[in-house]
Order: sequence, then C-alpha cells, then structure tokens
Amino acid sequence: MGTESDRADNQHHSPSKRAGSIRKRLPSSTSSPRQPQASPPKSPPVDIGVKTPNQYPPDRPIHQAQDSLFSSSSGWTNYRGFLNLSILLLVVSNGRVALENIIKYGILISPFEWLSYALHDPWRWPNFTMVVLSNIFVFVTFFFERKLESGTFSNRFAAWFYSILFTLHLGAPVVVTLHVQGNPFFAAGMMSLYVVEFLKLFSYAHVNYWCRCARIAAAENQTKSPVNLATKKDDRYTYPNNLTLSNLYYFMFAPTLCYELKFPRSPGIRKTFVIKRLCELVGLSFVVGALSQQWIVPLLKNSMQPFSDMNLGHCIERVLKLAIPNHLIWLLFFYVVFHSALNLIAEILRFADREFYRDFWNAETISYFWKTWNIPVHRWALRHIYKPMMRNKWSKLQASIAVFFVSAFFHEYLVSIPLSMFRLWAYYGMMMQVPLSILTDIMGGGRAGNIIVWLSLILVQPMAILMYVHDWYVLHYT
Amino acid sequence: MGTESDRADNQHHSPSKRAGSIRKRLPSSTSSPRQPQASPPKSPPVDIGVKTPNQYPPDRPIHQAQDSLFSSSSGWTNYRGFLNLSILLLVVSNGRVALENIIKYGILISPFEWLSYALHDPWRWPNFTMVVLSNIFVFVTFFFERKLESGTFSNRFAAWFYSILFTLHLGAPVVVTLHVQGNPFFAAGMMSLYVVEFLKLFSYAHVNYWCRCARIAAAENQTKSPVNLATKKDDRYTYPNNLTLSNLYYFMFAPTLCYELKFPRSPGIRKTFVIKRLCELVGLSFVVGALSQQWIVPLLKNSMQPFSDMNLGHCIERVLKLAIPNHLIWLLFFYVVFHSALNLIAEILRFADREFYRDFWNAETISYFWKTWNIPVHRWALRHIYKPMMRNKWSKLQASIAVFFVSAFFHEYLVSIPLSMFRLWAYYGMMMQVPLSILTDIMGGGRAGNIIVWLSLILVQPMAILMYVHDWYVLHYT
Repeated sequence: MGTESDRADNQHHSPSKRAGSIRKRLPSSTSSPRQPQASPPKSPPVDIGVKTPNQYPPDRPIHQAQDSLFSSSSGWTNYRGFLNLSILLLVVSNGRVALENIIKYGILISPFEWLSYALHDPWRWPNFTMVVLSNIFVFVTFFFERKLESGTFSNRFAAWFYSILFTLHLGAPVVVTLHVQGNPFFAAGMMSLYVVEFLKLFSYAHVNYWCRCARIAAAENQTKSPVNLATKKDDRYTYPNNLTLSNLYYFMFAPTLCYELKFPRSPGIRKTFVIKRLCELVGLSFVVGALSQQWIVPLLKNSMQPFSDMNLGHCIERVLKLAIPNHLIWLLFFYVVFHSALNLIAEILRFADREFYRDFWNAETISYFWKTWNIPVHRWALRHIYKPMMRNKWSKLQASIAVFFVSAFFHEYLVSIPLSMFRLWAYYGMMMQVPLSILTDIMGGGRAGNIIVWLSLILVQPMAILMYVHDWYVLHYT
Repeated sequence: MGTESDRADNQHHSPSKRAGSIRKRLPSSTSSPRQPQASPPKSPPVDIGVKTPNQYPPDRPIHQAQDSLFSSSSGWTNYRGFLNLSILLLVVSNGRVALENIIKYGILISPFEWLSYALHDPWRWPNFTMVVLSNIFVFVTFFFERKLESGTFSNRFAAWFYSILFTLHLGAPVVVTLHVQGNPFFAAGMMSLYVVEFLKLFSYAHVNYWCRCARIAAAENQTKSPVNLATKKDDRYTYPNNLTLSNLYYFMFAPTLCYELKFPRSPGIRKTFVIKRLCELVGLSFVVGALSQQWIVPLLKNSMQPFSDMNLGHCIERVLKLAIPNHLIWLLFFYVVFHSALNLIAEILRFADREFYRDFWNAETISYFWKTWNIPVHRWALRHIYKPMMRNKWSKLQASIAVFFVSAFFHEYLVSIPLSMFRLWAYYGMMMQVPLSILTDIMGGGRAGNIIVWLSLILVQPMAILMYVHDWYVLHYT
C-alpha cells in the first residue's frame, strides 16, 4: 500500500496528461508558476537547493493548474467502473426483491410437483399421442412428393393438395386442444412442434417444386450447358435422388426450417460439447421452472385484483414488477433453446451450420432484432415468403408486412388455442412491431435505437401476459 | 426495411468472418459442399446456369458451416448491447420501487417544510454563531505565526501552543453541540466546517514551520548557493512576506486543504461555467433532499421494528433496500460537493487546480479508492501525516494506519457528536477498510477488485446508518 501511496504522490508532481487541457486555456501563464516543462526544482524562492533530511521542502509544488475529470474540457472518457456499478446495483435491487419474496412466501419451488404434474395419468397423454400421430403428415408429404416427381399429379393439383393438407395439419391440434382442455403448457409445446413441422414440410415441398421447375428449364436448355456432367458428381444429393425417407427425416430433426438437398456436415461429434450443452439444457430449464414458480406465479396471483379494478398506478406497478423476472426468464429461455438445445441437436446430427441467432443484443433497429434473434424462422420467412413475393412483383413493404402477419398469426395461434381464449393480445403485440420498426429506422439506430428495442422487449411481453392473465381471471373467477 | 432484408440475406451466402473457426475444424471437407473460396455458383447438381425469373434457384446455399456466437470458438466479443440492457433493467426495477413508494406514501417532498425548519427561531442559530466565532482561531494562528517569524517564540513552544489551540478548536463545537442538543444536520455541517478549518490551519502552521527551517538552513549554507537572487524574483510569495491576512484568508476560502505560498491561478472567471455549477448545486441539492424525504425517511421509519426484533432475514432485506437510495444519494452528494461546489468556489477565486477527485469509479483496490475520491483530504494526509512519518523513519504500514486512524476519528467525530451517541459504528466502518485494502492488494485489483470497492461502498454505508438508526430508536423510544 505504501509503495502505491508514493506512486500516487509522484503523480501530483509529474505533469500528467490530464492536466494538459486547462493549461492550454492559460496564456503562456505568468500567473501559474509551474510549467510542465519545468517540473524539476526551479527558481526556488526560499529553498537552498540542499534538502535537509527531516524537513519537507516548502516549495515543492502540491497544486498545479488542471481541470476536474467530469469537466468536458478534461477530455476524460474512461468510465468503465460505472458498468460494474450498474450491474452490482441491479444485483442488489433484485436480490432484495428475491429476499422479500422468500420472506413472504417461503420456498415455493418443488420439482416433485412438476414431475407428478407431468406424469399425471400417463395413459392419457393427448399431446404425446398428437406428436406421434404427426408423422402421418410427414409420410403423406413424402409419398405425394414421390408421385409429383414421377409426374402423376400437376403442380396446380399439388397447390390445392398442400393447402388442404397443411390446413388439416394446423387444424388437428386446434380441435384436439379445444376438445381436451388439458394443461395449456403441454398443449402449447405440442402445437409448437406442429408449427415447426408445418414450416419444415412447407419448405420441403417448396424446394422440391423449385427442383422440378429447374429440371424442366434444364431440359429446355440442355443443348446450351452440360448439366449432366455436374449431375453425375454426387448422385445422392441431386433432385429425384434426394426423395428418400432418411433424407426427409434427417431434415425433420435437423435444427433448421429450410430444406436443402445437401446440408453442411461437421466431421464428428465432440463429446465434451454434447455434455456441456446437455448440462445447460437440464440446469437452466430447472432455473427457468424455479423462477417461474417462485417469482412469476405469486406475482400473477397478486395482479388479479388491481387489473380488474383497473387502477392505473397499480397496473403500471404490476407490469414493471413482472417485467424483471419475465425478461430474465426470456433471456434464459433464449439461451436454452437457441444455444443449448439447437447446438446439442446439431452436434448429435453433425449439422455444421450453427447460426441459430446473430447479435440481436446490439440491434439498433426493430427490424434488425427480428432478423437476428431467431435465424431459423428469419431464414424461412425470407426464403419462402419475402423473396418469392419480391419475385412476384410485390413491394418490399407488402412483403415485410406479410412476414410480420404470418409471424403474428403463429404467435397468436400458440397462445390463444392452448388457453382457449381468443383475445389477439399477442397478435397486436406483434403487429405493433411494424410502426416501431419504422420509427427506429427513421431514427437511424444508434444507442437510442438499441434502447427502444430492449424496452419493447422488456415491456411489451409482460403487458401482453398480464392482459391474458386478467382476461383469464375475468373468464374463470367472476 | 426491405433493403436491409436483402443485405441480411446476402450475408447468408457470403463467407463471413465469424464462420471461419468451425471451418478450420473441418478437414478439407469432402462432407461440406460449400467452401468459402467457391461462393459464386459452382458445380450445381441440377441448376442449369440460366436462372428462370420466377423460380428460386434450388441449389443456392442457405446453410454454411459456422459456430454460434456464444460458443467461445466463434471468437465473438461484442456484447455492448447488454450494457444498455442492464441500465434499462436498473431503471425499470427502481422505477417500480419508486412508483410503489408513491402509491404507498403519496408525495412527501415539501421544500417549504425544509425552509420553515431552517428558518425556525432565526435569532438563536448556535451553529451559525459558531461558524462566525471560528474566525477567532484563524486570527490567533495568524498573529502567532507573525510572532514565530520574528523569533519571539521557539518551535518547541509553538508545538505546545498549537496542540492546545487545536484541541480548543475541535473541542469547542463538541461542548456547544452537546449542550444545545439542536438539529443534528446543522450541527454536523458546522462541525465539518471546523474540521476543514483545523486541517487548513494545521497545514498553514506546518508549511510556515518548514519555511523557517529552510531559512535557517539557507543562512547556514549562504556561501554555497546564491539564494537571495532567487528570493528577489517575486517577493510577495516568499517566506515572511506571505504572512498577511489576505494571503491566509484566500487559503481559508480556497478549495484545498494544503497551504502553499503561491497557488496556481486561472486567468479569469468564466461566467457560463459559474452559472452551470450554480444550477447543479441548487438543482441537485434539491434532488438529494427530495430523495431523502421521499425514499430514505419512510424506509428508516419502517426499519425500526425488524432491527429491534433482530430478525436476520428482515435486517438484510432492510440493508439492501436502503442501499439503493443511499448509494444514489452518495453519488449525487459526491458530484454536488466535489464537482459543482468546489469548482464553483475555485472559479470565483480563480484557483486553477481543479483536481478534487480522480477516477475513483475505476478503482481496483480499496487504497486506490481512498487516494482518488477525495483529493484535498488525500493530499493533506499524504503531505502532513504520511510523508512526515516516513521522513521520521516510521514504516509504510504504520504511516498508512495512522492516516486511516485520523480519517476514522474525524468520521466518528462528525457523526457521534451531532447525534450525541457514541457508538463507534462509523469508526469501525473506516477501520474495516484496512483489511479490505490488504485483500484487494493481494488479489491484484482487476475487475473483481473494482467490484469489491463498489460493494464496500454500497453495503457498508447503509449498514452503519441502520446501526445508528437502530441505536437512536432504542435510546429514544424504548
């Protein structure tokens, strides 16, 4: 400590960089006796040049002309310590709320309750049955594509056939869920799986259609370019040869929604990578469950009253109180699904494209956020909605709105049906992104844009959740 | 938005920098069909090289081998968006607490109450009288220094005289405060002023003593060096000539505790600078008062019960709840005093050394924090305790402990006397800094060191405050 004291003391006397700016303000200063270039002992008024050992030289300068660091003229910019402070204050404020919660409610987390809930009546698992039955749609698609390849049916017939098939595919879980009225969470999980399957099968049919078109075009242009030479290179991955069940099922399990005839593959499976992702998946899922049970559930129970009384101050207070755990859970959920789970599946399937998300946390516009936080869906929407619409001469705005509309539809689909409540709050939340997106584009991004992106994430979700909870309460308890 | 979509889409296909690392893992990959060097259309299995306008080329690659950004192998380091997120979450969580406070208590801020409090019985202002009377000690010191200069008294006599004078100087406010039992805040303000005066007069006497020693040494070495030539250069600022009342009173008002014969002066007074600092001083002082009245006072009132019951969970909850507003007020207080007020005084007095604080927010050791947050006191302690002790062959550790001891004494002095409670909590809080300082030195600073510095600031203060409040409660209400 002493050595540092000495060092710090020396800094008083040595002309520091920071001190420069105020000196610039001063003229070649007759008023300031200490010029930086003259820091060794100079023109001492009383000192004798011989330092007596026990006395402090009275003329050794203690003060020198310099600005305070917070003055803009000081040119100081290093405030990184305040990042640590803001994180610490965040931990302290929410640690306090967590402690208050535990004092008030005790420990509510009970994994056994989850287990007993999940294993309740295991011979009547409608959602699991639905997942198994969904394979029927995969098989139908596969055999229909084989028939299409052989020319049995026309593309026009295929369009009608797929419209009916996909309506059935998305309609069946709706009918079952509304009929069974089971656990909304399991129903939502099952329906998410159906949506993923729909997106994948749509992509599969679309790509195979492109391949047929390309084959026809190739036949017409056969004389112009030597296609067949290329075709012979790797027969397994060329058009009709890709129509195998194993190829289709690899795609159904692969962590992507866009079908390709040949996916990039990694050379092997890294065991430590698999174990790490598996531990994250199990551990963080537990944390998400625990946070929900301990923090979200009591909060929602307490929110019933103020919302039905429609006391504005209390409503805002509830939204802000829900915002913190909700956002924390959203971040954890994002990491578990898009990093841990998809990487785990990809590693096991040796699927080499791991771009499941980009740097959405730096998003300075709403549109950049939607392009980066969920790359599988973004790629699908771009490849199968946006670009085909552009090729068919729709405007960019129309194509963008179509993408948002489809996204809003599926958000609402996955919320309204499991809850058996048709309220459109999720839909409105999604459609609100269009004007917000235009706003951030006009603002030109920057830090303010990033803050708007985060705020829309932090605040819109708990508002929508509380709307559903409120309506659920009104529906079931009044 | 559309243009950005296109750009984002192009990124899929162009070999990006991020994708490099996973490709390195791959051998010269027979399994991956897409090599970055071959990104333009290459060896298409079905495509014919002629793009039909309405079809999506089926072989245009959608996937490429690449790592997820959170994987360390991706080499991604840009997470600056999360800084905005943590600040936003901080605002949301504490905005919620503020809203809860207003719902619960309404608006408690009332500047008129402060005014009526301050102006209560204006003909009996003991603290103001004490401030006026303190000039006696300044005059006594001044005339005694004149006598010392002329050789009337010896240095040995001066040591005794000053010991008695400074004991009287620090003792008088104690007697008055304990006798009057007035407002603790005004008493603490008056006593702070006495402490500042003591430090300044001590420095004044010390420097003049050095000057006398230097004069004797100069007389002995007169033949060796031509001192008198130098002395003639600027007579006003050489030893006995500095002993004027105007010189002493400039020092008494100057924003420094270390006396020098000649201070660096700025060339003029910037009016806008004065107005800005004045507005900060008034505005932020109001904010500090408002935060205290609205946030701290109800919190302390509610804290009485849990502390006297000594329920550990509740106590921790109270400390954490007090920590946030307390730290916020400390930060504002720091800014108001060390930036606004001292810069304002310095600008008016054309005092050019504005280094009232350094970058304590980046402090990675406790000792660096104490060396940077309060430069006037740090300089004084270094110049008048630490260095003289070092010259008198004390060890660095002893000198450091002496500095901490003096600091702890004055902290306790300024708390115990106004409250008329002798509890030593402030003293213990200060002395705790010595082992903490050794800990952060051993740790070698870094980010963990910075976090310990902030934590000790955030948590030790509210703990000490609650201890005093608790004892005050026990003393006055049980």
